[in-house]
Parts: sequence; C-alpha cells; structure tokens
Amino acid sequence: MPDMKTYDFGSGRTDPASFPVAELAAAAQQGIEEVGTDFVNYPGELGHLGLREIMAMRETKREGIEVSPDHLTLTNGSFQGVTMVAEALMERPGEIIVTEELTYSGTIGAYKRMGAQLVGVPIDDDGMRIDALDRTLGELARRGTPPRFVYTLATYQNPTGSVMPRPRRFELLEVARKHRVVVVEDNCYGDVHFEGPVQPALYALDDSPDVVYLCSLSKIFGPGVRLGYVLARPPMMERLLDRRYDGGNSLLAAAVCAAYFRDRLWDHIEFRNALLKEKRDAVFAAFEKYGDGLCSWTRPVGGLFIWVGFPPVANRQVLREQLAERQVLHAPGSSFHVHGQDVPFLRLAFGFIDREDVEEGVRLLVECVRAAVADSAAIAASESESVTMASVV
Amino acid sequence: MPDMKTYDFGSGRTDPASFPVAELAAAAQQGIEEVGTDFVNYPGELGHLGLREIMAMRETKREGIEVSPDHLTLTNGSFQGVTMVAEALMERPGEIIVTEELTYSGTIGAYKRMGAQLVGVPIDDDGMRIDALDRTLGELARRGTPPRFVYTLATYQNPTGSVMPRPRRFELLEVARKHRVVVVEDNCYGDVHFEGPVQPALYALDDSPDVVYLCSLSKIFGPGVRLGYVLARPPMMERLLDRRYDGGNSLLAAAVCAAYFRDRLWDHIEFRNALLKEKRDAVFAAFEKYGDGLCSWTRPVGGLFIWVGFPPVANRQVLREQLAERQVLHAPGSSFHVHGQDVPFLRLAFGFIDREDVEEGVRLLVECVRAAVADSAAIAASESESVTMASVV
Repeated sequence: MPDMKTYDFGSGRTDPASFPVAELAAAAQQGIEEVGTDFVNYPGELGHLGLREIMAMRETKREGIEVSPDHLTLTNGSFQGVTMVAEALMERPGEIIVTEELTYSGTIGAYKRMGAQLVGVPIDDDGMRIDALDRTLGELARRGTPPRFVYTLATYQNPTGSVMPRPRRFELLEVARKHRVVVVEDNCYGDVHFEGPVQPALYALDDSPDVVYLCSLSKIFGPGVRLGYVLARPPMMERLLDRRYDGGNSLLAAAVCAAYFRDRLWDHIEFRNALLKEKRDAVFAAFEKYGDGLCSWTRPVGGLFIWVGFPPVANRQVLREQLAERQVLHAPGSSFHVHGQDVPFLRLAFGFIDREDVEEGVRLLVECVRAAVADSAAIAASESESVTMASVV
Repeated sequence: MPDMKTYDFGSGRTDPASFPVAELAAAAQQGIEEVGTDFVNYPGELGHLGLREIMAMRETKREGIEVSPDHLTLTNGSFQGVTMVAEALMERPGEIIVTEELTYSGTIGAYKRMGAQLVGVPIDDDGMRIDALDRTLGELARRGTPPRFVYTLATYQNPTGSVMPRPRRFELLEVARKHRVVVVEDNCYGDVHFEGPVQPALYALDDSPDVVYLCSLSKIFGPGVRLGYVLARPPMMERLLDRRYDGGNSLLAAAVCAAYFRDRLWDHIEFRNALLKEKRDAVFAAFEKYGDGLCSWTRPVGGLFIWVGFPPVANRQVLREQLAERQVLHAPGSSFHVHGQDVPFLRLAFGFIDREDVEEGVRLLVECVRAAVADSAAIAASESESVTMASVV
C-alpha cells in the first residue's frame, strides 16, 4: 500500500539508522562499572563529572575558550535549561521575555505556560535584527517593563536555519549590555554543522555572567537519552542551581554516554554530520527539481531544519488536509510564531526521514502546495496575508 | 588515624556494598538493545513504557489495586514529582501548602523557594494529627486562603519514621474531601519495609483524581539513577504534565533499570531490606546499650531514618561542634521543621553507613549529647526549649 507511506519531516531528530546501539551497549558496561557503588549517592547539582569534562572539552575545542566543568550543569536535554533559566530569572507571572519573532515552538509554549509574556523581535536572513532589538529593549525600559532576558537561537536558528554572523553577535551583546539584559543563548544544534566557518557562540564572545549558554546531546546523538547542559559563570550558575529541584541529572545516563563519547566525540559528530548533510542536500535538490517558482526554502549550513515558504494565497486548510492525506509530516509555521500568526511557511526536519524518501516527500509537499494555491477559496484571503509574510522575514 | 574515621548517618541513601554493579551492567546491554534506534525519539511525557509497566506492577502488587502505566509518569527521582505538583497546582507566590510540622528538608526548601507559604500540622507517633489538620484547613478556609494541597509522608515518615495507621488514613482522606483539598502522598520509601503489616497507600484508598502519589527507585536502588514516578488519575495527570517541561525522563536510564528489575524486583527488594534491617537493629541495640535514659529514639518498621531526641537542655552549639569533631554525620532536627525551629532532635540515616561502624557511631553520638547536656551554658536555655519539644511531638 504505497499510499500509507509516511514522509516524516516532523520533529528535529537525528538519523536513526546510524544510531550506535551496539557501541552504546558496550560503553554502558564500562560506564556503569566506573560509577560502581557511587549510584547510591546523589549526582550533585552539576552532575556526572566525566560527562561534564567531555562537554567542557567540546565547548573548548569548538569555541577556543577555556570552559570549566564547574561552570556546567547537566540537564534533561537543553530544554530543562530553557525552563530553568526562566524559573530562576522570572520573579512573577506577566514578566517579559524577548525572543526572535519566530522561535522554537517548545520554548514559546513553556514560557507562556510559565506566565511569561513574549515579545518577538523581527528577524532577517542573519537572525535577530539588532536595530529592532535595541528599539524593543528601549521601549520596554521606557514602559517600566524591562524583560527578564533575551532568548536567542543565534546559530542554526529554529525554525529558519539562519546563522547570525560574527559582527552582529558583537552588536547583540553590546545592545544587551547597554540595556543590562541577560542573554540566554540556545545552541542546542551546536556541532550539527555541514560547511563553511563555524560562528562563535555568544558565550565565547563575552565573559560576563549575564550570558547563559544551553547545549545538548539530543542533536548530535539522540533526544531519548535526555542529556543537555547549561554553561554559566558565577554568580549566575548559583542563581540557576538555586531553582533546580530534581536532585541532579541521572548518573546512569551520563556515565554511559561519557564512556561512549570519551574517545570518539568528534569522529561520532563528523560521521553523523556527513549523513545529515546528504539528506539536507537531497531536500535542496528535490526543491530545485519540483518547487522552483512556487516555494522558497532556506539553505542552512547546520542544524536540522529547512524553512519552506509558500505563496500566501495558498489555502491553509487545503494545505493541511492534503499534507495529512499524503502523510507528509511537518511543523506548521504558525507554531513558531510568538503570537501564533499563520505565516505562509512550514518547517521541514530532515534528520529522521530515510534518505531514499526525501525526494518523493518533497515532491508530494510541492504538489500539496500547488493544490492549496489552486484552491479558489484561497484568493479572498490573499491580501491580508501578504502583509504578514513581509513582516516576519 | 582512627580519629579521622567518618560515621555517615547523614542522608537517606541505600547500602553501597550491595549495589548490584555487575548485574546492572549486564542488564544495560539488554536494555539498550531493546530501545535500539528509538533513542533518536523523545521519551514522551510519561516515559519508557517498560519501566512504567514494572512500576505499575510494583504498585498493583503492594496495594492490591489495578494501576495503569498510563497513570504513571517517570521523573528524576520522586523529587521532580514533589516540585511538579507544586508547579502545577500553585497559581501564584504566597499560596499555602500544608505539610506535617516536621517533614523532608528538601521539600521545605524547594516549596519555600517556589514562593509557597508552608503551614505545618502537628504530628504524633502515628503521623499527622487529623483533628489538627481539620482545624487548620477550616481556619485557612475561613481566612480565604485555602491551601493548594496537603503534602504528606504518611508512610515511614521523614524524619520521624512513623507510619500512619489505616483508620487514620481514611480520616485524612475524609477531611481532605470535606475541605476539597488535593492530597499529595510522598511514598518515596515505599517497599523499604522490615516487619509487620504494610499500611495501604492513600492513593489505594481513594480513587479520586485529587490524590496524587509519588514514589521512587532511589530508596530501593540508588538515588544516582534519578528515577521516580508520579501516579495520578485523569484529569490530574494532564494537569501535572502540562507543567512538565523537560521533554520526558531518560530512556537510557529507564531502559537499563527496566532490564535489571524485570525479573527480580521483589528479590532485589527483599535482599536489600534484610541488610537495611540489620543496620537498623544495630542502631537500636547501640542506643539501648549507650543511650538509655539520655536519648529517645523512634523504632520505624521501614524507611531509612531514626529520629533521635535529646534533652532540651543540651547546648546545641556544643553538640554540633562535638559531632563535627568526631565526624558523626547526621541531619539536625531544625532542618525538618517547617519554620526551622531548633527542636531537640536529630535524624540518623542508617542505610549508607557500614554495619560494623554503627555501634561506635551511636556510642560517639551519645557521648556528644552527654557533653552538650553537661555544658553549663545550656541550663539557661532550657525553659523555652522544653515548650518547643512538647509542641512538635
């Protein structure tokens, strides 16, 4: 039944076929023996030292700065870090957090449920626009409602895939300093890099305790292990840990992963990135073949996502129905807009889908877009939506 | 240097010598292979099905009720559950949570940092006093500040070791129903049981969604694995998960523990309880030999703690100094009082210390108490403190 086939461009997961099950199982033996009877102790609020050392070396090597394992706390994925900073820095419901106008749907949902008010800053191909950030922070200060922090996905932005260039990073840090606002940098896609120079982390460009850095093993390994980390310099780290209540991160998960990664972190990353790059390139090729003139698509140099634009006239409901019928899983653009605006985009994640299914998946997607555009009911809606498109990209 | 020896009665940990390192390492291989490439998926908000099934069977067998794995979410120890319920049920800072007047220091600290106001209910040898609970809830309702929930350690209470008898459990549930208050039952010491009948969980006596149950692998296995769980019936479970932000509990830790426990949960528990009971009995014997007439001590039928009373006249500072000098690690009574009152008690945890060191540790402790009582400076303080003692036990 070929019509039952699923094309899973849904969530940001890594390549399943290459997950090193046997190697991880072998490492588990070693990792567990190394912890030994220490399993009867609590992991401590920073967590397993061995994995912290490996992740500190990861940061040191990528960023060229000295990162201490004492400034690193292991978390349940980077997402526990996303919420930990809000819990630590927010004082009461209704306070403001500034983000890119388009940002990770999980972050939007969690911050809103925690009672924060999100203020989105317009973005362009290079990420958050600094002039707009400066204006926003100035306006919020004048109103007497300065934000608790700026949350940014400066590298391999989710959902757009953009990377903020180095000069703009300095400008961002300068504007944040000027307005005395903490910057929280979510670099969860760090090291999922395919070509060209790697842009430095904000954390590496500013040694102030007011820059907090989040990273993860989810994107270089797998989200199932639930391992991520927060980097923060004193006294910020103490402030974050004061709002950490889970008794620390699993020694078991961390020790097993430390044993696995100890001697092969970069080999592991290099091997997986090559596979991911192939899939990404297959998405590009398929869009060039089928989508040209109808769709737009970003060309990210890293991360797991491509942000696909379609004509604003497209009937959203028809598009949703067609994509569901053809089992083309994706994330709708509106879920990444801070106010849920129905932007004429959708996000494709290319890490999980079989390499062989990419072309057909994209072909079907384009077909769905074409059907949605053709739908006559769409025409009436077109004027208001074209404004929307211009305002978000 | 015998004077450098440490007597570690400090925190509630299990017996290290009997931790099954080799068996866990062997199980890891199996558990990891079972998950296989599913590590590239998120664990889901409930977590690894295999471990949920084993834990649901654990509850079903102990409590004699049907527990569904769908009403169970895995957490980083039971402590993530402790805070998850507060995050889900509290609406704003300053709201009230009712607890036993003496309760787990970690809970007190976390709830206070989360902005809750704690109201303590007096306890006796059978746990929380229901007449006092009824009065407290009535008074809070009259003031227009009903509590968000009642948090109770009804079984193997921390720090006192008491177990609430079955009839009183029904009374507690009735009073909670009458005042329409949610009950959160922390049964993290569940199955660490040494003799006599097991009292039923509140969760098993009331099928209302307003009874939430917390449990753990920390006390039957080791806190280093960071695995616990919350049981809640709909719609309470949805309400709790709505405030869960960590992307779920580690598949890696859970799968490994599921493979370990699958065929030996009860053998594991029985074997460890026998070792713990020996240590507990050694503490009893040592107090009978050295402490009679000077100290009081509880005789818990389960859990990991003994609550040791000393004469209120004892000079606390001298006691602290003497215990520190002799390296008798313990938890001071004041850390378990909701308002930090300096009650003339301390808590001994007997799970971690070597069986051979118990007698000498208790002998030294009694010596320290004797020195603190003998200290002349203590006499002036005695009057006010004797009032304190009467009010908390």
